[in-house]
Amino acid sequence: MKVDGRPYRTIWLQEDCRSVGIIDQTALPFAFQTLRLTTCTQAARAIRTMQVRGAPLIGAAAAYGMALAMVEGDSDADILHAHAELLETRPTAVNLRWALDRMREVLSATPRPERVERAFAEASAVAEEDIEICRSIGRHGMPVIEAAFARNPQRPVNVLTHCNAGWLCAVDWGTATAPIYAAHEHGVPVHVWVDETRPRNQGAFLTAWELGHHGVPHTVIADNAGGHLMQIGQVDLCLVGTDRTTSTGYVTNKIGTYLKALAARDNAVPFYVAVPSSSIDWHARDPRDIVIENRDADEVLRIRGRTDGGRLETVQLAPDGTPAANPAFDVTPPSLITALVTERGLCPATADGLSGLFPDRQPDAATTVRPSSAATRLRNGR
Amino acid sequence: MKVDGRPYRTIWLQEDCRSVGIIDQTALPFAFQTLRLTTCTQAARAIRTMQVRGAPLIGAAAAYGMALAMVEGDSDADILHAHAELLETRPTAVNLRWALDRMREVLSATPRPERVERAFAEASAVAEEDIEICRSIGRHGMPVIEAAFARNPQRPVNVLTHCNAGWLCAVDWGTATAPIYAAHEHGVPVHVWVDETRPRNQGAFLTAWELGHHGVPHTVIADNAGGHLMQIGQVDLCLVGTDRTTSTGYVTNKIGTYLKALAARDNAVPFYVAVPSSSIDWHARDPRDIVIENRDADEVLRIRGRTDGGRLETVQLAPDGTPAANPAFDVTPPSLITALVTERGLCPATADGLSGLFPDRQPDAATTVRPSSAATRLRNGR
Repeated sequence: MKVDGRPYRTIWLQEDCRSVGIIDQTALPFAFQTLRLTTCTQAARAIRTMQVRGAPLIGAAAAYGMALAMVEGDSDADILHAHAELLETRPTAVNLRWALDRMREVLSATPRPERVERAFAEASAVAEEDIEICRSIGRHGMPVIEAAFARNPQRPVNVLTHCNAGWLCAVDWGTATAPIYAAHEHGVPVHVWVDETRPRNQGAFLTAWELGHHGVPHTVIADNAGGHLMQIGQVDLCLVGTDRTTSTGYVTNKIGTYLKALAARDNAVPFYVAVPSSSIDWHARDPRDIVIENRDADEVLRIRGRTDGGRLETVQLAPDGTPAANPAFDVTPPSLITALVTERGLCPATADGLSGLFPDRQPDAATTVRPSSAATRLRNGR
Repeated sequence: MKVDGRPYRTIWLQEDCRSVGIIDQTALPFAFQTLRLTTCTQAARAIRTMQVRGAPLIGAAAAYGMALAMVEGDSDADILHAHAELLETRPTAVNLRWALDRMREVLSATPRPERVERAFAEASAVAEEDIEICRSIGRHGMPVIEAAFARNPQRPVNVLTHCNAGWLCAVDWGTATAPIYAAHEHGVPVHVWVDETRPRNQGAFLTAWELGHHGVPHTVIADNAGGHLMQIGQVDLCLVGTDRTTSTGYVTNKIGTYLKALAARDNAVPFYVAVPSSSIDWHARDPRDIVIENRDADEVLRIRGRTDGGRLETVQLAPDGTPAANPAFDVTPPSLITALVTERGLCPATADGLSGLFPDRQPDAATTVRPSSAATRLRNGR
């Protein structure tokens, strides 16, 4: 996608084919800075400090980290050492282990003199595959936006999104943003309501930044505003990403997604989730299996922004000693979801829907889902 | 309610009976400062700059402002001048005009030599009546909290609230907080989930401050978190205030209230609204009659907090030039409301419910409400 008119990815192989460029996302939205990584340790630090973040991008960055390691030393021990160093950066990210295991397997089977070349080629393949998955989500999701425009061609299609499931979390295109960018490229007028997404404000910090630089019209709103906008007919569809979707269609995503899905149902607004197959947990059927991370209270009580003087400052937002809770995700039940948008097409948020599109990746357990309500199923869920 | 162990009101007559004390709410939550008002112009400035805010408190402050004016001059012209000066401070507040008209009427009928005494007595009556209304809401609402505790005595009753409908918006007790303070006084264990309430953060700034100083256990959460907390059974009831409730039970309140009401219904959590009769708009039957104020985008894009160094700083929260929208209120339809808690008791959020409790204040129009859905009714609502 574009930054100041120039196409960028979040990560790229430099011209010397021995170093990797990234956008330093910790500097966004107030500064656009790129960094050049030349060692595995630099790649590990970039992942750990969230200079690169978002599950797909973490996978690609880890793969490139393995390639950088091969430049420094190409023995079997070097492969294992790099794998371990990168794996410990973000212990819970599924894509991280997947990408590292793939690199280790490929490199172990490659003769030492060819390992550097092979490593960069394989890491680039990981990145290209991610781009292709996102592009496919865009291709399959765009007709939903086109159809909304056809129904009401008097104004741009108003899409509401939550958090950042944009190109900054992937290598290019993003997941939830892919259909939006595709529609924009094809001349379908689209306007995005960007939930600021407290407490970490990824909507206001990242989604607004990337939409603005690519030229997609958008408006930032407080997370509280989406329900009202749907009530007054100002939202044509919702489109969000997911951190983990069960094989039965329960969508774990950034905290607050569930509230928007409820409002969408109450106002007959279609609610879509962009789901790359890498984010489907084929082992999880029951939403109670999903552990919701409780993060540091400080993320609620303090926020970083820029002063009028141009300084970055972190300010406190509550009285001294105020307790805060910070659950990071919630679970949206299938009954609130119009469809999942995957790289293989759209499907209902059900076990049948997902297994129909991905017959090659069937859920392993044969147990059936208990027919209780979503609310009951989630109650004791932590 | 208490501040550092000492009982306070938000406004009070000083011992000299010729000046008025207020808590400067613009300094909260980082400093507790009281101010002494001695002139009508000072009272007008306190209302305009939101040193006092909240509909009931604005009414009391305006009444005291009229009394301060009488000390400076007690002619009929002085009465009219003070009325005009105070009325223009917050043009949309219903309580402001009501209190000013009441003072003007009383003072005009009072001989000049008695006007100063009469004015302070009447202003104090306005304040005392507000306290009595809030206390009654507390008395009628407390059984709801007691009943929740009886159902699950293993833990404190978890009440979720939104924005600040606390004693800081009234003279004492508050509206939504009155049943909470009453339960706390009576030894019913209660814990409050405080929505931070973006964009102006009245929950984190004011509700957390007043609950903390009075000693009521509470936890601040991002507005996004309430739905998840209901899903996992951590909310026993919701209790919010209202800026305006139609005679048919549609509740206008701080933006985001509607989302919590949807989540409450989805998880079978009771949802109560504290409604002093002064906030009922007997003329409004149709929610489309309610104009939703769109406030300055800057409230979304910038926030004031305290740096580690103790400085108050306003910081920017989005890229330069980002557009933002800032609707300040939303409308919660009666179907999502368990009951309204008024100073005369609980009632369903319906025309019959309200007219049953307030037969003396019947809605004037005899038109019937169109039987369309809330969503449709609100769609073109602005």
